[in-house]
Amino acid sequence: MIAPEFPLLPDPSDPRLTRRVTGTDQTGAETELSVVEERPLTIYLNRQEIVTAMTIGDYPEYLALGFLRNQGMLRPDDVVTAVDYDDEIETVVVRTERETSYEEKVQKKTRTSGCAVGTVFGDMMEGLEGLVLPQTQVRSSWLYKLAREINTTPSLYLEAGAIHGTVLCQQDRPLVYMEDVGRHNAVDKIAGVLFRHDIPADDKILYTTGRLTSEMVIKTALMGIPVLASRSGFTAWGVEIARQVGLTCIGRMRGQRFVCLSGEDRLLRDVDPASVPDEDRKARRKASA
Amino acid sequence: MIAPEFPLLPDPSDPRLTRRVTGTDQTGAETELSVVEERPLTIYLNRQEIVTAMTIGDYPEYLALGFLRNQGMLRPDDVVTAVDYDDEIETVVVRTERETSYEEKVQKKTRTSGCAVGTVFGDMMEGLEGLVLPQTQVRSSWLYKLAREINTTPSLYLEAGAIHGTVLCQQDRPLVYMEDVGRHNAVDKIAGVLFRHDIPADDKILYTTGRLTSEMVIKTALMGIPVLASRSGFTAWGVEIARQVGLTCIGRMRGQRFVCLSGEDRLLRDVDPASVPDEDRKARRKASA
Repeated sequence: MIAPEFPLLPDPSDPRLTRRVTGTDQTGAETELSVVEERPLTIYLNRQEIVTAMTIGDYPEYLALGFLRNQGMLRPDDVVTAVDYDDEIETVVVRTERETSYEEKVQKKTRTSGCAVGTVFGDMMEGLEGLVLPQTQVRSSWLYKLAREINTTPSLYLEAGAIHGTVLCQQDRPLVYMEDVGRHNAVDKIAGVLFRHDIPADDKILYTTGRLTSEMVIKTALMGIPVLASRSGFTAWGVEIARQVGLTCIGRMRGQRFVCLSGEDRLLRDVDPASVPDEDRKARRKASA
Repeated sequence: MIAPEFPLLPDPSDPRLTRRVTGTDQTGAETELSVVEERPLTIYLNRQEIVTAMTIGDYPEYLALGFLRNQGMLRPDDVVTAVDYDDEIETVVVRTERETSYEEKVQKKTRTSGCAVGTVFGDMMEGLEGLVLPQTQVRSSWLYKLAREINTTPSLYLEAGAIHGTVLCQQDRPLVYMEDVGRHNAVDKIAGVLFRHDIPADDKILYTTGRLTSEMVIKTALMGIPVLASRSGFTAWGVEIARQVGLTCIGRMRGQRFVCLSGEDRLLRDVDPASVPDEDRKARRKASA
């Protein structure tokens, strides 16, 4: 894969990602709407079938790489020799120089919560011990600008709804904006971009439309990203883990409001919230569980 | 388990389900909020460990029974000899008269989309073939009353947010209102109540706060419930499967508005939408992906 041009933004006009369907409304009148696609993608690591993900279907290579990376099945120093995607049989095979074998790990499954957080193999907390996140700074002015920009960027969400967004940001700039029916997929796609193109994570901010659950917090920390921001709320365990690993967690970002429950030390409030304009209706809809 | 008294409603005052956490708001002022709990629950079927679910933690027995039932690992005629929950080691063991062995099935995992739809073992479409759902009627007046009542019932969502609700309804009455950090858990808890207390499904309506994804549609159909309604949107495959199995699918229910994309024939519009009051702000928040 050649490095993508940043910012990498959603393409709501991509005909493979949405479908027009006809139904009736409350009055019985015929109505047509766009709905997002949802299709299986089976991920292989070398010879082993790892998982089948339900995904909207874009960036299958990044999804596979990021999923395997976030599961610890791809190591930071692993040499990927090929990523073969076959849309006919809906599979993607990641091939590595290193011989891999995760039969045992794949036995232990955790159904995580969060929005479509899906499956985690092995010990969820694996790799968190001794993890130290960089002492970067995050300015409230960046967060406000990011939230406003992300929520008004043309997206599948604004086009069809029923989808999650996760955005890799640097200071006040969105770099990679991924969407998927499964929020965990959107995060994994971003992990795939980071891994594939060797992009440093220590100066990044991860923004998500979904809840800050244990898995979101763990994945962000494992990716080495020190700041996680969301429109939505928190779970108790998500907050607990964020505090343990020193991840800055900012949630309930709506208009001028937000709450910081962890990693307060990185946060610089450099703008008067009262000067921040309120959200328009569309953006307000963008909260989700 | 003795049969529960209906309606079975959320208990937002249950201290085990939420936690008060302290943080700072956009002005730097200290703020305290309620966040929902999220804890692992490992489900065993007889001697076999099946899965670990991340759950808010209420009704573990119903969650285990419903999960196993929805996975086809418990048959309708299975005799459950015991359901042993141990909150110390966070496990629940379901014991059956029949010897069970699902090693193979547990190998094939699907990470589904929808909100925390989690894991499906084996073939997702298993059991749908030849399925016929009863030709019951659903009135728009029931749907309006259900939506209004559910969205204003005291709940963990209204108390702490970041949680999903799924409600088993009969005509215009909510019977079982389950919430969980994972929407799939909320659905499985309802399946557990149906299975455990032998409650007929053919005259029921399932209402959910989350999206109508393939897994929600499949689970509803497998439970034998002919009508699925939601505040949220649809995925293309969810609509496709609903049409295949003849499930009535109604989404985007907000105030007077809704869209029916499948099973129109069951729907009787017996009230003028214009006479339906709009939602209050709290209820409006309740849409999610």
